[in-house]
Order: sequence, then structure tokens, then C-alpha cells
Amino acid sequence: MQIAEPFSTPVPTLTDHRTRASAEDVAARFHAIRTRTTWITDRLAAEDQVIQSMEDTSPTKWHLAHTTWFFETFVLNGFVDGYQPFNEDYPYLFNSYYVQAGERFSRPRRGILSRPTVAEIRAYRDEVDRRVVELLGRLEGAELERVATTIELGLHHEMQHQELVLTDIKHVLWQNPLNPVFANRDGQSSDSRPMGWLDIDEGIYEIGTDEMDFAFDNEGPRHRVFIEPVRIADRLVTNSEYLEFIRDGGYRRSELWLSEGWAIVEADKWDSPIYWERSDAGWSQFTLFGLEPVRGEEPVCHVSYFEADAFARWAGMRLPTEHEWEVAAGELDRAGNYIESGALHPRASGDSRQFYGDVWEWTQSAYAPYPGYRAAAGALGEYNGKFMCNQYVLRGGSCATSLSQMRRTYRNFFHTAARWQFNGIRLADDGSGRGREARG
Amino acid sequence: MQIAEPFSTPVPTLTDHRTRASAEDVAARFHAIRTRTTWITDRLAAEDQVIQSMEDTSPTKWHLAHTTWFFETFVLNGFVDGYQPFNEDYPYLFNSYYVQAGERFSRPRRGILSRPTVAEIRAYRDEVDRRVVELLGRLEGAELERVATTIELGLHHEMQHQELVLTDIKHVLWQNPLNPVFANRDGQSSDSRPMGWLDIDEGIYEIGTDEMDFAFDNEGPRHRVFIEPVRIADRLVTNSEYLEFIRDGGYRRSELWLSEGWAIVEADKWDSPIYWERSDAGWSQFTLFGLEPVRGEEPVCHVSYFEADAFARWAGMRLPTEHEWEVAAGELDRAGNYIESGALHPRASGDSRQFYGDVWEWTQSAYAPYPGYRAAAGALGEYNGKFMCNQYVLRGGSCATSLSQMRRTYRNFFHTAARWQFNGIRLADDGSGRGREARG
Amino acid sequence: MQIAEPFSTPVPTLTDHRTRASAEDVAARFHAIRTRTTWITDRLAAEDQVIQSMEDTSPTKWHLAHTTWFFETFVLNGFVDGYQPFNEDYPYLFNSYYVQAGERFSRPRRGILSRPTVAEIRAYRDEVDRRVVELLGRLEGAELERVATTIELGLHHEMQHQELVLTDIKHVLWQNPLNPVFANRDGQSSDSRPMGWLDIDEGIYEIGTDEMDFAFDNEGPRHRVFIEPVRIADRLVTNSEYLEFIRDGGYRRSELWLSEGWAIVEADKWDSPIYWERSDAGWSQFTLFGLEPVRGEEPVCHVSYFEADAFARWAGMRLPTEHEWEVAAGELDRAGNYIESGALHPRASGDSRQFYGDVWEWTQSAYAPYPGYRAAAGALGEYNGKFMCNQYVLRGGSCATSLSQMRRTYRNFFHTAARWQFNGIRLADDGSGRGREARG
Amino acid sequence: MQIAEPFSTPVPTLTDHRTRASAEDVAARFHAIRTRTTWITDRLAAEDQVIQSMEDTSPTKWHLAHTTWFFETFVLNGFVDGYQPFNEDYPYLFNSYYVQAGERFSRPRRGILSRPTVAEIRAYRDEVDRRVVELLGRLEGAELERVATTIELGLHHEMQHQELVLTDIKHVLWQNPLNPVFANRDGQSSDSRPMGWLDIDEGIYEIGTDEMDFAFDNEGPRHRVFIEPVRIADRLVTNSEYLEFIRDGGYRRSELWLSEGWAIVEADKWDSPIYWERSDAGWSQFTLFGLEPVRGEEPVCHVSYFEADAFARWAGMRLPTEHEWEVAAGELDRAGNYIESGALHPRASGDSRQFYGDVWEWTQSAYAPYPGYRAAAGALGEYNGKFMCNQYVLRGGSCATSLSQMRRTYRNFFHTAARWQFNGIRLADDGSGRGREARG
Repeated sequence: MQIAEPFSTPVPTLTDHRTRASAEDVAARFHAIRTRTTWITDRLAAEDQVIQSMEDTSPTKWHLAHTTWFFETFVLNGFVDGYQPFNEDYPYLFNSYYVQAGERFSRPRRGILSRPTVAEIRAYRDEVDRRVVELLGRLEGAELERVATTIELGLHHEMQHQELVLTDIKHVLWQNPLNPVFANRDGQSSDSRPMGWLDIDEGIYEIGTDEMDFAFDNEGPRHRVFIEPVRIADRLVTNSEYLEFIRDGGYRRSELWLSEGWAIVEADKWDSPIYWERSDAGWSQFTLFGLEPVRGEEPVCHVSYFEADAFARWAGMRLPTEHEWEVAAGELDRAGNYIESGALHPRASGDSRQFYGDVWEWTQSAYAPYPGYRAAAGALGEYNGKFMCNQYVLRGGSCATSLSQMRRTYRNFFHTAARWQFNGIRLADDGSGRGREARG
Repeated sequence: MQIAEPFSTPVPTLTDHRTRASAEDVAARFHAIRTRTTWITDRLAAEDQVIQSMEDTSPTKWHLAHTTWFFETFVLNGFVDGYQPFNEDYPYLFNSYYVQAGERFSRPRRGILSRPTVAEIRAYRDEVDRRVVELLGRLEGAELERVATTIELGLHHEMQHQELVLTDIKHVLWQNPLNPVFANRDGQSSDSRPMGWLDIDEGIYEIGTDEMDFAFDNEGPRHRVFIEPVRIADRLVTNSEYLEFIRDGGYRRSELWLSEGWAIVEADKWDSPIYWERSDAGWSQFTLFGLEPVRGEEPVCHVSYFEADAFARWAGMRLPTEHEWEVAAGELDRAGNYIESGALHPRASGDSRQFYGDVWEWTQSAYAPYPGYRAAAGALGEYNGKFMCNQYVLRGGSCATSLSQMRRTYRNFFHTAARWQFNGIRLADDGSGRGREARG
Repeated sequence: MQIAEPFSTPVPTLTDHRTRASAEDVAARFHAIRTRTTWITDRLAAEDQVIQSMEDTSPTKWHLAHTTWFFETFVLNGFVDGYQPFNEDYPYLFNSYYVQAGERFSRPRRGILSRPTVAEIRAYRDEVDRRVVELLGRLEGAELERVATTIELGLHHEMQHQELVLTDIKHVLWQNPLNPVFANRDGQSSDSRPMGWLDIDEGIYEIGTDEMDFAFDNEGPRHRVFIEPVRIADRLVTNSEYLEFIRDGGYRRSELWLSEGWAIVEADKWDSPIYWERSDAGWSQFTLFGLEPVRGEEPVCHVSYFEADAFARWAGMRLPTEHEWEVAAGELDRAGNYIESGALHPRASGDSRQFYGDVWEWTQSAYAPYPGYRAAAGALGEYNGKFMCNQYVLRGGSCATSLSQMRRTYRNFFHTAARWQFNGIRLADDGSGRGREARG
Repeated sequence: MQIAEPFSTPVPTLTDHRTRASAEDVAARFHAIRTRTTWITDRLAAEDQVIQSMEDTSPTKWHLAHTTWFFETFVLNGFVDGYQPFNEDYPYLFNSYYVQAGERFSRPRRGILSRPTVAEIRAYRDEVDRRVVELLGRLEGAELERVATTIELGLHHEMQHQELVLTDIKHVLWQNPLNPVFANRDGQSSDSRPMGWLDIDEGIYEIGTDEMDFAFDNEGPRHRVFIEPVRIADRLVTNSEYLEFIRDGGYRRSELWLSEGWAIVEADKWDSPIYWERSDAGWSQFTLFGLEPVRGEEPVCHVSYFEADAFARWAGMRLPTEHEWEVAAGELDRAGNYIESGALHPRASGDSRQFYGDVWEWTQSAYAPYPGYRAAAGALGEYNGKFMCNQYVLRGGSCATSLSQMRRTYRNFFHTAARWQFNGIRLADDGSGRGREARG
């Protein structure tokens, strides 16, 4: 099985800035990305697509409908005069969190809904897609530009949900003692390279972006930060290194942990990343390819912020800030970063410096607005800003992220206990003397 | 739509006592009752069959698998040498509560399992059914008798789950704002007759049964009770009568309620039976036929013990004990009891005395062992006995009960707050002077 | 220390039926019983009297105030024209569950109130007592009779709360790793006698009472029941016998337990009665005398209904019904029952038949109204009736019960999981053949 | 009543750097600060000191014991050879969160402990104090310096708990419908001045401290940050201004709130700061002086981070970062800041610029380690570092803070939903154009 293809095959990009793209270009890109979603879900049974395994996850069929609702609400309803909704109950069922867009069905109860069925939702997708393309065919000039801008946001939203479909279904299938297989592993594993270091000098750096083909509002405004000197690892922490932490009592030594993290370790009896289990034959992990042995050379994955932080403390170091990460990634954008999207599992580093395409990387930066940030008015202003509290920023992009979503300024964010995403660890060393001697 | 047919059409019964039934008779009866189960579930989408709407309910596909597991475990595994399970993980997934039969998957998490799919479970049913019939063909004499006895228990178990499939899917579909329809209403409604009374004289009565074609162990031993004089209503309480209770502030007057019931009324803001809702157009109720107006002449249904008890107190009466019910029903067994199975909704009394086939009837008797009761050894001994605590007995049989399960000594039981079953109210009056004047 | 004295010293009783008692007699009895309450609480620190250790228990100072509120509400407020409450906020704070008497402070939050202080509540008691006695001095005839009747109910209520003060403070002190001592053990322990049996013949028996110096409404109406032949043990189950059950895996064998009980055993990891703990030196138990070794000859105490039922099943027997208990106790009322009130801990049987004064005895009877029962109108009608659901009847009376509350028809009741009361086990054998062979 | 005195009267400070302080100086300062604690608690009843009103608060008597445990553990046990603990159970009971110092009694159950009583804990305090002073009298040179350093940390810890005693008892007394009064209001209220602004220019600033008489480890290392231009309000937001927000629908407009905050607003039905209540007579608030009218000119207090953030967004501005606050406060350290400690309630600004002594001021900075921060080894290393996650920094110091704890670099921190502290709001404006027009 090879899911990489629809992820990494270049989708039609807009040859010019989207504001001058043709309706045909927009439609082609729209079609390619929408189709990728169902390409993923086609390998699931209808029954799989119903389940909500925990409050954080959503049923596959909800993702299929919600991404469609996004286009129906912000494109069709916004730009088609007298638009009649496909089904008047769907907005209530498939709005996620846009309070200003109306009432919503209770999030933790999404798994209680058997109807509409998968087939009915696929029909909903088809009809909305048809109407969007139809709309594009009628527009030009400034109006086309406004619609294309909203569609582009919707497509980035769609790609985010493609990743969520994969992370959520992984969690769903993991609940099942039958260990269902989503896909077959594809390709060879390589070795991991020794950890190298990228030096960042003290100084004022510019962070974020103000303008580009596409960026979320939270990536700007571009602004200045002062960074004290620091070294950033040039590859991810591997399973072998993480196993050393486990064997050294990492999950039993309170002094390595943030207080909230330690409370969870004790309450939930954490002793490894989620999806890992130990048997007489050693460690195995549940993957989208089924249950597999843990491979030492691969990046550790599915760890919470608490585990990433504890590992770093054990190693005598710390996590990078998001500013440090962005500066380090900028040094490397020109060559040697590993990017293979759609692999469904992180790969060993090989010769790559591995900044994108394996795992999202926890930073020690709380998710906060950049100076001068201001959310847009209306429901779309709820896209990012209202979550800037009690979450932490991750950078890079994982093996489940679309190639066209990986960029240096992208700010992903999750709560500190979240483990079901493809999240891993990169180390930073600020020469504070925490050093290696802290271990043991 | 007419679901009554597979419910009320006589299934092959054993012309002789089952201990002398032929293998062919047993197989025919087995086939007929097993087929009725899938006849019911065929009208559902795969997605419907996955959902567990609350801890008390189970997914349809779990019922399909669990009833099959019952035959696999107690028949095939018990009587076929060297039997290999269809799937070695299924016993863990589909054992309900038989602790002595091994570990079980967590009950409140049954809705988290997408696999096995409906199609896989149907294949499981087919294979087990084939093996059971095959086994019957090889047996005779005492061994046939032992297997037939276990099969007969399994078929009564199957019929109980047929009713649960209906009550559970009703609760599942009710969650959904789309108000899905399970079936179309069939037949005409009649009027309700005035309430009449059956007098029971004081005296010693015999209760329960020791011997019959089939009875659960909790229906015996037959024993004596003394009953003080009492009158028992000869029909069920109607929606009209219950609406009078609601309009009289029934749900707001604490003095009418048991303390535990009042706590729930306040906490969950109960103001009507479950499935009822009030709009400007009056009261409607969710049924297996979709959302319908509440019809005054039909028996009130889907009430908890607390509501049944509060209604009776408001009416200046009380609920019958299960002994009183059994004596009253015995008076009438010979004529005039209403029985139409599979109607999917209780019917107005018409000319009938309505002791069976509409709703289960709450009694004020806590579910307890009869004097001299002793559960069987082994896992099957867990069928009834271990639930004899904090539940209350219901008698009769509902519109979702198989005709062949309705009998005078049958003891159904549920917790006092349960409302998702087809449960209703019959009144008793012991002349204690609680009288009508208690109202208002 | 000897707390028995104020418990078992005869308090002034009314020489004649209370309807003809003199005001002086009533006042003397009122004074004696009210004083006994503070005699108990005097041995506690103010801090002890604030704590609510779980929802079932109440702070000592709440009991002091609530019993006073009872007299203020139903005597002073009911019979003194223009009565002004001692403090207008107290009714809200100290009403327990009388919905018809007005709003109440949340029960599970009683331990959140530091004010009024113990001293302030004692002043409240003094003032109400003064006013009650003053009122009595002004009355005669029918009015005196009505007040005396309410006072008598209040004094029985007071005695119930005296027992609760002891059971609740035991639970409070047990929370504390310092193992605080409430009182010093007094007197010698004797041996236990071999278990004997009382035979009850089949027949119709009269149960309950209609008339007496004092009885709660739930003890009537007197009515007939039919009892099948049964034998009732003539002493309580001892700690030695219960240890045999534990050693035989009693807490690990699901087949011995009711399903609800087993769920609690597993969830809460029950492996002995509450207050017991095992160390290398053997079993010890927390008592009002501090931590003591478990003495084999004493009655087992502080067990739930589930444990009593499981023990009886293990022993091949069952618990008696409340009817059987009442009949058996009636056989013995004339001689040989053990009654020593206020011992604060159950005593070995010695030569006694031990029907009263050690532990409350679980029966297998769900708490239900007797035929023809009807609660009184108004708030006092809430005293008993509204709890007749999901609780089980206990009979007898414990080492913390007032002598003047022990009578054959008294129906105590608690939920099946309750363990903090002085509750124990008496066996019944209905010759069902469950027999001894069920063990092991 | 005047509680300001023991708070603001200068306690003996160490005339020289503490490393050269005399044992007498240390002992005098120790005595003065320890005495202040009991000076506060002396105005409470024993009953008040037992209550834990929610998990965040602790009983007064626990504070009394815990601060004593700190000196016993880190001074007496650390520096006295063969020290025998006052009571061997106390370390278990009174350790707060120092995992490396041994097992701890469950935090949310601190209110379940009646023993040791207040009197016993006061005896514990007296004895430990005596032993500490005795120890000091025996030391000199480097050893004295080490002990004095630990004592100084213990005294700052003591002062933090003095503030907690006040904030916790306020919450305890607020539970009580009797509205108990802790102290009498003292002094006159003044007016509030118009809001002025302090301009901060863009540039690199030094933040934190490396060396001083005393600082917590989280205040260093001193390091550089770049700040974009911003204006900081020179006084706190007042109740009048906050009432304008309420009246403008502030608690009903989701677009003003962080997503987590909005969820709490809806779930807990927040419609004002904690302690406020609305009646026909207008808004009142519970204070340590009892229930009082809300005074418009006083700073708004007892708001969560969510409310502070929503208010700022409504005002078209934002909260300052902790860096911005520290820079702004530095501008003003030389004159005009309002400091009156121990007032027990925030005061109107009058002519003051009000940076200290009224309320703690929420910043938008998540609590995080400064670059190069490293926690100390051992249990004392748990003092600050392990909490650097999901909390937000507050700066300044409140009317319940000791004068000697207010300094520019002090980093207080609480969870975003915390409201029981004396926390308020200062505005920042980064000219992002969020402007005033966002309102309405």
C-alpha cells in the first residue's frame, strides 16, 4: 500500500498569486485536494467511520461532513444568492466550534450519530463540490479573488482534517483488541545518523510572516525577537534514545517531570508512549500498519509535551522555543531537510536533517498571539485566535501532513497531555550547564 | 411495514415436552427464532448497528454477536469435542456478564468497536448456526435432551435480545436530531375502555412455577404467599390519564415522589416520560415510526419505576405487588387478555383487558429470590440470580416481546430509573384510604 | 470510659400512655434524652465536629443543630404563636430532607460550614430546650397531648441521631492517619457460644404493629404474611467465621456475590469489612477505642448488604427476611436476648441469644410499605415513606442504639453498599439444599 | 480593625547581606514573620481553621502546620544531628508537594482531618520555633550562612502562605450563607484617577535578576528580550469599567473569549467576578469585611485570566506580557507606586500609579523558565520549576501580600481559571489597531 502518492504528488498549485489565479486553476486544485480525502477514507469500513474513541477525536464520517460544511457555509452560503442548504439540519450537526456560525451538536457526542450514513455524506460532498465548481465558473475579477481566498483557506482546513482522519482512525482502531490494519507498510527502513547540532548566535531575529501564497493569521505579524545563544539538534530523538530514558526509570522519577505531567503519569500509569506495549518479546507499537516491533532507529512518536519535556530534562537539555526552531529551520530550508509526506509512520533519519515530514515537534513555547496579532471579524476569526491559551506550539509537519502544508512559519498547537498526534522530540541546549550529568 | 409477523406468527413449538423432541423439531425452532433476529436488523444501516447510546444499551451488532456467542459457548463448546472457536478473540468481545465464562470487554465501551463489522458478524452467525444444526443431526437420547435444553435456554435468551435490539435502537435513533424512522406504523388505533377492577380476596395463593415447557429458574420454586384483599385495574394507565398527572404538577410536587426519584427529577429535569417532547402544537413522542403526536387512548409507556409510583400515589392508589399481579393475571388467563406481539408500540385497550403485549408493568416488588431458590452451578447460574438486588419486577410483556415469551410467571426486572424499555403502569387499590382525595 | 451509662440508664419513661402524661413527665424525659446527646459530643474537640467524611455522614455539630431544628420547627414553630426563629438562617442550614419544610442547604456540602460554631450551636440548643420546657408548662389537655406526641417523635429522632453521631464520628476519625481515640474500652470480653437454631413453622403470622407507646409509621399496619418453614440462627456471625470466609477467597469468588456487589468489590478493591486492615501482625480494626486487633469471638460488624449476602451464600444459607426475623425475635422476647446499649462496640455472645444491642442485622427484605401503609400529610410524612426504594431492612439494634429504641417491630434501613453503620449478619436456612456443600 | 500593621510595619531586615547577618538578626526576623502568621489566624474560630472549601484552598490549620513542617524538614532535619521529629506522622500530613521529601497526604482531602487540632498545631509551631532559634544560637560562619539562607527561603515561603491564609479563608467564609466577617474595614476610600499611559520604546531590555538580598530561582537568570513598542496603563482597571463590560454583554459574547474560558462561562454560568452578587439593590461583593456594595472606584478583583483577557479584548487592547510589565514597573520604581500592604481589600488609585499592593496583575505570559534556568537539586528544587506549564504569570503584589515580598522581578503564577486570589487587570495597547472600535 502506498498512501504517499496522493499526499506528496504535487497538487495543482496556483502558478500566480492566488489573487490572479484562473477559475480553472482554483477548481483543479479544489478537486485534487477534496479527492485526496475520500481516497484516504475509501480504505475504511462504514462501521469504522462512526466511532469517536475519545473526546479529542471525531468520527471519520464527521470529518467528511464537516469539511464539506465548511465550503457550504463559507463559500456557497456566503457567495451564492438564495442558497438553500443541502439539508437544513447539517449545519447544526457539522459545525465544529464556530460559535458565531450558529448552534452546534455537542462535540463529545459526535460518536452517537449513525445518520447521516457514510453514503449520505458522500452524496453531500459530491453535491457541494459540484456547486462550488459551478460557482467558480460564474465568477471573475474581485469576486473570484474573494471566493478563491476562502476556498484556499477551506483547502488548508481540508488538509488539516486529512491528517486528523489518520490520527483519529489510528486511535479508533487501537481500541480494538483485534488490532485492525489500515494499510500495508511500504518501503525500506534506513539507519539513523548521529545527532548533530546547529548553532544559533545571539541576536535579533525576525519571526513569522506577513505575506505569502498562504499562511494562517496566527503566523503573523512578522516581528522581532531576541534569542540568546543556543544549539539545536539536527535530527529527532529516536526510539533507541527514548528506550534508554525508559530503562533509566524515566517514568518513575518525579524530579524529571512537570508537576501536571507527573500527576498524569501516576493517575494513568503511563510507562511508555501511547500505542506502545511491552511483552516478553520486547516492545511493540500499534501503527496504521497494525502491531509492529518498535524500531530503534525511527523517531520516537506519540509522546505528550510532558514526556518530551521530561526526556529533555533527563538528557540535560531542554526543548527549543518556537522562535529557536523557526530560526534553525530557516538555516536549513535550502537543503537536506527530510520531507516525505503520507508515509503514515515516521522514518529513520538516514542522511537527512529531518525537519519536516516525520513528526510534529514539541516546542517549549506556549501558544500565544504575536505582538500586534488581531483575529479577523466574524466566524472565520475563530479559526485560530481563541485557542491561544494552555496549548503548546509544535513545528515542522508529520508523516501524515500534506506536503503543501509544511512551511517554516506554520504553528501547530495541542494540549500538553495530547498523545494521539504524530508528535515527537527535538532537543535544544542552551549551555546552561544542565548538561549530561543530570542523567542517572 | 409489519414487524408483527415474525413476532406473532407461531414459531415451531415442540409438540411434546422438549425432553422428547426430535432433533428436527429443535432445529426447525432454532432456525425460525434465529432468523427472526436478522429479520429485525435487516432494516438498519451498518452505521446504526455500531452505536451504544448509553451504558444500558448495546450496539445492534453486539447483540447479533453476543447471542451467537451464547450458542457457541454453551452448545458448541460444551458439546462438540475439540471445538475450535470461530475467532479466538470473540469470547472476550461478546461475553456479556458471565464472569465464570472468562474475561469480558468493558461493557460501557461496546460502542468503541468498529470491528468485527456487521458483515463479519453475520458470517459468524451463519457458521455457528450451521454447526449447531450439524450437531443436532448427530445426537439422540439423553445427549440430545441435554443439548435441546441448552438450546431452548439460548432461544429464550435470543428472544430477550430481540426485544433489546428494538428498545436499544429506539434509544440510539432518538439521539439523532434527524429523527430517523425504523418502520412504518401499521394498523388502526382503537379507543380505550373505562378502567374496571378485578377483586382479589384475602388468602393464601400459590406463586411461581416448578415445571413447564420452559421457565427461567427465577420463576420458582412454587410457594405460598398470603395476600390481603386488594383490587387490580383491568387495563393500563393511558396517556390521557398521565397527561392529567403532568398538568396537575406531577413532576413538580415532591410529596408524590420517592426520595431517590425526586432527586433525579430535579437533577435531570424530568417533566414527562422519556421520548416525549412538548411544542406549541402539543405533546409528541419519538417512536420506532418516527416522531408522532401523543395519543391519549394509548397506554403510557417509557416511564421509570419512580414515575409509575408517583402516578399511583397521585391517583390515591399504589402499584400492585408481583404476587397480586400474578394472581390477577391468573384470573384472566382464560379470556380477554390482549396479546399482539411485534406491534412496536403499545395499543389502546379496545375491548381487551390488556395484560400482555403492550407494555411491561412495574410492580412494587423488589426483585428477590423465592423461598428455596437456588441458582444453578457454573456460568449459566449467573443468568438471573446475581441480579436480585436493587431492581424491581415487571410483569406481562410488551409490544416488542415475543409471543412465546409471555406467560404468567415471567419475572422481568429493571432498575428504578430505567425508562428506555416499553414499561408502563397498572394500578392497585388496597382500600387503605389513600383514595382519590389525595389528589390536587 | 463508660458510655453505656447514658445509653442504658433508663431514661424517664411515661408511666401512662403519653396521651395522659403530665407536662412534668414529658419535660423530664425531654431533658434526659437531650442531655445525653451533648454528653456524647462533649468528648470531641471542636475541630472534630466540623468534618463531613463522605456524603452519607454529617458533621457532629450539624447533628447537634439539626435535632434542635426539629424541635424548633415542629414544636415551637408549630405550637407557639408568633414564634420568632432563633436565627432566621438556621432552618435553611439545618433542615435535612423535609422538602415541604422549605429549602435546604446542600447535603454533601455540610462539611463546608464553619459557622455557626459549636459554641453557637450549643447556645441554640439551650435556648430551644428552654422554650420547649416553657411551652410544656403552659399546656394541658388535648393540646398538651398533641405537643407531647410531637416531642416524643422528636426524642426518637434525637436518639436516632445519637447513634449517627457515633457512627459518623467513627468514620471521620478513621480518615485520620493518627488513629484518634474516642473513648476507652470498658469491660471484659466473653466467649462466643456455638450457633444454635430457632425453628419457624410454616404458617400465617402477624407482622408489624398498630398501636403502642411509640412506633414509627412504617411499622404498621399490622398485617398477615405466610412464612414457609425456616430455621434462624440464634446468634450473630462472628469475626472468626467471617475470617474463614475471607481465607476461603470470599472476596475473590464472583459466584458468591450479587452482581452490583461484585462490581464494588472490584472497583473499590474490597477485601474485608471497612475499618479492618491487615498487617504482618494479623488483622486489626479501627474502633471508637482506637486501633485494636480483630477478636474472633465478637460479631462481625461494618459489613454491607453485599458482604452479608455473599457470606450467607458461601455458608450455604441465606439472610432471613424481615418477617422471619420478627417472628424469631418474638419467640425470644421473653428471655435470653442480649441487650447492652452504649457499649460502642459489639460484644461476644457469651450465653446470650444476641438479638439486640450488638449490631443491626441485614435482612434480605427490600424496604417497602406494608399493605395499607399511608404516610401522614405534611412535612412529617416525609420521615419514612419516601425512602421505601432500593434500601434493605435491618432489624435489632446495635451497641450504639438507645435501649429505648430497641423493639421487635423497628425497621431500620440502609443502602446495600453502606458499611459505616454497626451492621452485621444473622443466618437463615430454608432447607433449600443450598447446604454446606456449596462452600469451597 | 487594622491588619495592615503586621503586614506593613517593617520587619527586621538584615542590615547586611544575609551571608554576613548575625544569628541574632536572623532570629529576630524569623520571630517577627512567624508571629505575623498567628496574628492573622488568631481572629478565627477553631472551626474556621478546619475547612477546605475547594481543592485549590487549604485549611488554615494546615497552613499553620505546613509552614512549620518546612522549617522542621529543611532546617532542623537538615542541620540538627539526630533530630527527632515532633511527631512522626506530621511529615506525611504536612508536606505539600515535595515529592522528593517523601509521601504526602492527599491534597484534596486536607479538609477531612480534624486532628491535630489547632491547639496541637500551635504547640508544634512553638516547639519548632524554639528549636530553630536554639540552632541559630549554636552556629557561626559558613554553617550559619547556609542555615540563614534556608531560613530566609522559609520566611518567604511563610509570607506566601500568609497571603494564602487570607485568600483561602475568604473563600471558606464565602461558602457560608451567614456571611461571616473576618475583620472590620479600616480607612477611607479615595477616588480613582483617569487612566494614563506609560510608553515603552522598542529595544532590547534586561529581564529578571541574578543577585539580590533575596529572589526565587525562577526570577533568573537575567537575560535579554526584544520588546516591540507598546503602551502600558498606569493604573488598574476599576469596578466601574468592569461593570461597563458586564452591561455591554461581556459575559454573553463568545467572540470576546478564549475558547476554554467561554466553555467555563457557559458551564459554570459566570456572569461576574467571583464574590459578586446582584440583587435589586445593585451589585454587592463578599469581602473579608463581610458583604459590601461594589465600589466603582476600586480596582476590579478576583477575576480569572479568562475574564482579564476578555475584558482587554472588549476594550480593544490586550494584557501586557510579563516583560512589558517588568519594564514599565522599572520606570516607576522611583516614585508614585501605591503600596499599602495588609489592607485586605484593593484601594482606589487616588493619586498613585498603583503598581503594587492592590491586586496581582494578570499578564499574557505563560509561566516558563527563563533561558538558562535550572532548578536546584533535591526537594527544594521543586519549589518553582515543576509548575512551569499551563499557568500564567502575575506581577505586582496584592493587598494581602507582605510588603517585603513586593519587587519588580517577582513572578507569581496561577491557572487561567483561578479566581479566589486577589487578581486584577492592567491594560496594554500595542497600537495593533484592535482599538476601541472593537467594542459594541
